[in-house]
Amino acid sequence: METRTWSPRDLMRKQSARTAALILCILSYLLVGAAVFDALESEAERSRQRLLARKRSEFRKKYGFSADDYRELERLALQAEPHRAGRQWRFAGSFYFAITVITTIGYGHAAPGTDSGKVFCMFYALLGIPLTLVTFQSLGERLNALVRCLLLAAKRCLGLQQPHVSAENMVVAGLLLCAATLALGAAAFAYFEGWTFFHAYYYCFITLTTIGFGDFVALQRDEALQRKPPYVAFSFLYILLGLTVIGAFLNLVVLRFLASTEVPEHSARRTNTFRKGALKSRVGVATSTCISQGIHQLETWACDNPAYSPPMSPEALHHCHSSSDRCPARRKSI
Amino acid sequence: METRTWSPRDLMRKQSARTAALILCILSYLLVGAAVFDALESEAERSRQRLLARKRSEFRKKYGFSADDYRELERLALQAEPHRAGRQWRFAGSFYFAITVITTIGYGHAAPGTDSGKVFCMFYALLGIPLTLVTFQSLGERLNALVRCLLLAAKRCLGLQQPHVSAENMVVAGLLLCAATLALGAAAFAYFEGWTFFHAYYYCFITLTTIGFGDFVALQRDEALQRKPPYVAFSFLYILLGLTVIGAFLNLVVLRFLASTEVPEHSARRTNTFRKGALKSRVGVATSTCISQGIHQLETWACDNPAYSPPMSPEALHHCHSSSDRCPARRKSI
Repeated sequence: METRTWSPRDLMRKQSARTAALILCILSYLLVGAAVFDALESEAERSRQRLLARKRSEFRKKYGFSADDYRELERLALQAEPHRAGRQWRFAGSFYFAITVITTIGYGHAAPGTDSGKVFCMFYALLGIPLTLVTFQSLGERLNALVRCLLLAAKRCLGLQQPHVSAENMVVAGLLLCAATLALGAAAFAYFEGWTFFHAYYYCFITLTTIGFGDFVALQRDEALQRKPPYVAFSFLYILLGLTVIGAFLNLVVLRFLASTEVPEHSARRTNTFRKGALKSRVGVATSTCISQGIHQLETWACDNPAYSPPMSPEALHHCHSSSDRCPARRKSI
Repeated sequence: METRTWSPRDLMRKQSARTAALILCILSYLLVGAAVFDALESEAERSRQRLLARKRSEFRKKYGFSADDYRELERLALQAEPHRAGRQWRFAGSFYFAITVITTIGYGHAAPGTDSGKVFCMFYALLGIPLTLVTFQSLGERLNALVRCLLLAAKRCLGLQQPHVSAENMVVAGLLLCAATLALGAAAFAYFEGWTFFHAYYYCFITLTTIGFGDFVALQRDEALQRKPPYVAFSFLYILLGLTVIGAFLNLVVLRFLASTEVPEHSARRTNTFRKGALKSRVGVATSTCISQGIHQLETWACDNPAYSPPMSPEALHHCHSSSDRCPARRKSI
């Protein structure tokens, strides 16, 4: 392991280089994605467009619409679409909508039509999204702990002496759990909605990643929201449990991605009253801990060096006070 | 501060109680949301439904549609809607779509129509979403560091002796920055799209929280994707920069929410080679660090107590090896 001492400037430069590399990475990824989607969808779109134009002109010829009337008819059809599933905004539908808001799925199968609904929706999301993040984070951690426990028990049952559960074991288990969740959901929704298994799988994937295009939305047939309470309950439960599973797995994967940014051991030793374990470890840290370590490290150096004064986080302020007198004027504010 | 030693069982119980409380919290929040949305939207939906039924019957009387023809016309209108903005799947449109996939906005204004497009979309999201999470996390951290720096400089300019930036300062600054980002976006999109300022604000909010209903979508008028490259560039840049600002703020807010789960100082001292700083601090930790601390703490106790064998994370394993010989058989696997 490298042992040279990193100066605050070096660390800041390293952080900035990392962010720049990530931006470059994401832009390239978007460019590649755009090229592939263009290649896959462009031709199909063109032929769909031709087909639609032909059908439209057939209808206009058959019924002799004026252009304005046809546009009005189109508008009518679009506005009527959300109502085809029955009432969207009675209690069950509103509960469904509330789930799509706070989980950020946002299918758009129903969207607030009144201005007061829009205002409430914004305030509701403002509190609901952080609450959901925290809850699913907590649930994901519990789930990962349970999976670890079960894997350990399984290894003991297989007669392994002093068994342990590696990160690879966890990722493989997470992957299998995700695949099982998606497959189970796909089978159920294919049965209830009459979709093909592939389309139901696509629906589950787009829902549980919270993308939520809204091209496939459950509970929109035969007034299911009002008429099929057990299916409604299953759908809500599936979304909430599925999000826990995917969230837990995403955590594991993002952790592995972040595991490459290691802070040198020497630096960690130098700040031994400050997150020593966290700085030394390669994995097992929370999603953004690696990224924030650099900033905290900078702040610790600021305590060591009165000539250097970067902005302080409350945590660093707390440490300055509890472990040294080198930042006498800075107080812990929370 | 409380100083009693927490047993692993106590800690696990505390964690489980916390998760249960969060679940209860989120279910209550969903129930309240459903009740309010029901109250706000239900009546408006009913009158919209009545109006639509009247208009539909007028049209059917005027043109004498058969029921099948009318349904076909509706289907045609729905399928034609994505094409009204011009070609969605040429390069600019595909880039736009790729952004909505990896950021999980998922308006649904365009969704892959081919099965190969759907398959690629799933694989694309699988890698793209974690990459986006990491990038915006990194960008958010950089932005927060910059804001801290600017606040400190501003306080120095105001003549404050030994200025410091508190968490409250950061949250207020974050809130103002978010409000400014939303207001700027609202003004721009109201101008470009011809929406009211309120609707444009709602669009920006729903986009930057990644809910993305798709009831308002930019770049869908006058073939903007093909004809207005500067506006297209502005929209993409706005979404990406806006997500950075909202992400940074969300981090600050979620941190404050997590700040209440404190691990007793005594426990932290007992495990002084293990995340001492992180365990002592109340804020300034990454989103999920507080939640995962309990599990790591459990694992450390497991090292202390050979009779207790909970599942181990790679990090804990690493510590067992680097700091003690009490878990001789467990090896660091990554």
